[in-house]
Amino acid sequence: MDTEDTTTMIPPRYQRLSDELAEAIHGGRLPVGSRLPSLRQMASQRQLSLNTVIAAYRQLEDAGLVIPRPKAGFEVAPRLSAPQRSLRDAPSAPTAPLQQVLMARVLEAQRRPGVVDLAFAGPRGRQFYPGAQLARHTAQVLRHGQQTVETYARPNGSQRLLAQIVRRGPRLGLHTHAERLLLTHGAMEALQLALRAVTQAGDAVGIEAPSYFNLYPLLTTLGLQPIELPTHPQRGLDVDALEALLERTPVAALVVMPTVHNPLGCTMPIADKQRLAELVNARQLPLIEDAVYAELQFCEPPAPLLKAFDRDGWVMVVGGFSKTLAPDYRIGWLDGGRFAERIALLKFQSTGGEPQLLGDAVAAYLEAGSYEHHLHRMRRLYREQVGRLRQLVAEHFPAGTCATEPQGGFLLWLELPGVDTRELFERALAEDIVFMPGQVYSRGARYRHCLRLSCCQTLDARFIGAVERLGAIARELVAG
Amino acid sequence: MDTEDTTTMIPPRYQRLSDELAEAIHGGRLPVGSRLPSLRQMASQRQLSLNTVIAAYRQLEDAGLVIPRPKAGFEVAPRLSAPQRSLRDAPSAPTAPLQQVLMARVLEAQRRPGVVDLAFAGPRGRQFYPGAQLARHTAQVLRHGQQTVETYARPNGSQRLLAQIVRRGPRLGLHTHAERLLLTHGAMEALQLALRAVTQAGDAVGIEAPSYFNLYPLLTTLGLQPIELPTHPQRGLDVDALEALLERTPVAALVVMPTVHNPLGCTMPIADKQRLAELVNARQLPLIEDAVYAELQFCEPPAPLLKAFDRDGWVMVVGGFSKTLAPDYRIGWLDGGRFAERIALLKFQSTGGEPQLLGDAVAAYLEAGSYEHHLHRMRRLYREQVGRLRQLVAEHFPAGTCATEPQGGFLLWLELPGVDTRELFERALAEDIVFMPGQVYSRGARYRHCLRLSCCQTLDARFIGAVERLGAIARELVAG
Repeated sequence: MDTEDTTTMIPPRYQRLSDELAEAIHGGRLPVGSRLPSLRQMASQRQLSLNTVIAAYRQLEDAGLVIPRPKAGFEVAPRLSAPQRSLRDAPSAPTAPLQQVLMARVLEAQRRPGVVDLAFAGPRGRQFYPGAQLARHTAQVLRHGQQTVETYARPNGSQRLLAQIVRRGPRLGLHTHAERLLLTHGAMEALQLALRAVTQAGDAVGIEAPSYFNLYPLLTTLGLQPIELPTHPQRGLDVDALEALLERTPVAALVVMPTVHNPLGCTMPIADKQRLAELVNARQLPLIEDAVYAELQFCEPPAPLLKAFDRDGWVMVVGGFSKTLAPDYRIGWLDGGRFAERIALLKFQSTGGEPQLLGDAVAAYLEAGSYEHHLHRMRRLYREQVGRLRQLVAEHFPAGTCATEPQGGFLLWLELPGVDTRELFERALAEDIVFMPGQVYSRGARYRHCLRLSCCQTLDARFIGAVERLGAIARELVAG
Repeated sequence: MDTEDTTTMIPPRYQRLSDELAEAIHGGRLPVGSRLPSLRQMASQRQLSLNTVIAAYRQLEDAGLVIPRPKAGFEVAPRLSAPQRSLRDAPSAPTAPLQQVLMARVLEAQRRPGVVDLAFAGPRGRQFYPGAQLARHTAQVLRHGQQTVETYARPNGSQRLLAQIVRRGPRLGLHTHAERLLLTHGAMEALQLALRAVTQAGDAVGIEAPSYFNLYPLLTTLGLQPIELPTHPQRGLDVDALEALLERTPVAALVVMPTVHNPLGCTMPIADKQRLAELVNARQLPLIEDAVYAELQFCEPPAPLLKAFDRDGWVMVVGGFSKTLAPDYRIGWLDGGRFAERIALLKFQSTGGEPQLLGDAVAAYLEAGSYEHHLHRMRRLYREQVGRLRQLVAEHFPAGTCATEPQGGFLLWLELPGVDTRELFERALAEDIVFMPGQVYSRGARYRHCLRLSCCQTLDARFIGAVERLGAIARELVAG
């Protein structure tokens, strides 16, 4: 366990005040429109300095939870409601080509010089990564072991890094061994290997709707048929619906993102995770748990992975370091559960091993013990940024817009009743703004009125201007 | 072009003498058993110093071309004949499971501590790689650009490295652009992407028999059906046979290794390459050219790639740096020909980009200009080692054994009439010796009496002892 981290976690006073008020706002005890006590009142009530209270209020303002009113202190800001209705409409006829065309279009748009990219789900900017430290550790690995660069990598990857993944696991309820783990070329290769280990061409695979868009071409490549499973926008996979579906449709495997879902940002309630784990164990149904955002959960302590409730190894876990630490190094990992041996052979046969230099460098960084501290900062930062983005959307998007309340990460999923987001996409692109239209997250048209925004860059005037403008275009589309 | 390389290439005198004599031996002008002129005779004939002649003769001895006879100077050594007959027997019934089981067994055997590994086709030992220089360049890239480690890689990979690949291309007849190229996670991912770009599950793909063993599980994964094409052990793919086959069996693509074939070591004659390129262009049939050993051709100047004769971009080329420069970095590359755009999308969708740090480091090494010099040394070294290994086989393996005469690389392919190499494998493994049994290179049993040996490690007493022992076991099997 990371004992060194908990000791450094006592937050400063302003932070504690800010957290307490934020909870009161989220919990509805401080309703929209209500006034916070004045700075002086609060300072004397809590026996805090005025500066501490100012810092706390400023943080709430940054997070979009309160708005300063001229000469009237701070008021709880109007908030978006979270979508509550599951989008259970029957899957439309497969339109994979459209989905593919749209994805290619987004990709092409992201490459245009000068666009404001609200689509890419990778942090950009040095404030999001401990780049200097990682570079230092990498240089050190190079100095101490020239042989790392002149030797073929071990098939399972850096043993040092596997040991660190094992060590950190229990924090998220993952109790594993190095023999069950494998480093992969990004989390995407881990998904691929896990799927290949448990399916054959022609099989059906249950995936959530909406799902990570690159899952679709991956399934197509492997000759697999996606069966879309209903989700609740705030609670994730609908286990009842899954159970009912399994009675009539056999699937070879499931791919689920139970902790900080992409694109929804939601985490399944513990009870649902338990039920799902029991269900796949009882049915001996392989489940691939995509946990790439699990380290960026906003709550402390973080919720455990689905894998924590796995009894017989039917759950495989996919993780990685690209979102949090080393985007260039492309290091993913896979806990293969009961399929670990088969997966190791597939890995060897398809891309060999992973660079020892990079694995050892990340291991050295983790060994040095400041990863948890870094993650802690990032969770706060993303939480703030997501809050600010929600607030911007509340202010500038059409009435009736819903936005998820992410439980981690840096993604926001919007429902814009009455707006075709493909049309919005083209209109926005003409003004050099790119986002992810909802239709790339499903085969059918059910997310035609949805979109995903990322806020893993500096929320500067350019970013804010783009969001405001996007909202304005959406309003125009509604007005028709 | 690499003008800096040709100027450094004038070999020393002993080398020129040794090359001349080696050619005479290979060409049959100095037949087996004939005596070389005495050291003194040769020195006075050629007006060379005695030391120069000694060095030249020693090199021929190292290469296994001559044997010192006590008090009788040097004699041209007995040589293995190269196999001449194409193994055209009809493909047996598919036995993919056996092939898979055997491959898993080899992999497992290679991991045993203490084995002498004659199977692995990756150089082991620092004399085969410029590790110190590469580490230095890597450290320099880290120092000059911390941002490399904290930024997501560009989808196509390091532009610096792509530029170097373009620059080096003409040496092998490859005239390409960075826009058509892509870095991949080892050459294996390049093969995968190229196949995915031009096939769909259910398609048939023509591959050589024998073929790189990891091609089979790759095809299986993608739902593709391998059609094995006959090869000549010294001239590679049989273009006549291919042409006849295409008349009756449609294939979606071909995978061919025309330059230093794995496992055969052979290079297709130029005329055959030209015909094959014309054929695929005329038929608009995508061909994937695996060129990972092309930089290790023994002849100077090297033979051009098949791609050199491609007219309309139907040939894709797979290359990489693992065999020659940076095994740990796992850098492959792919010239996607007319399919480059589709391949770029597939790459993004399946594993993202390649680490910029590693790509830039290799680029920096190439820019510094000593790669060609390094390759030159390696070609000589492997040529010598292959020669010594052939000689060992000639001395210790059963009568009737044939061995290919590789035109590059470090692999030797043996035919042992009357020996089941799976049995030999198990017997050898019991004595901690591992090699590649022939049956992993084809679906059927046609290579049951074949095996592949690697000589990309130091040929020390342990290595030599293992080859001798392997020969002895084979003789026992023949006698038994």
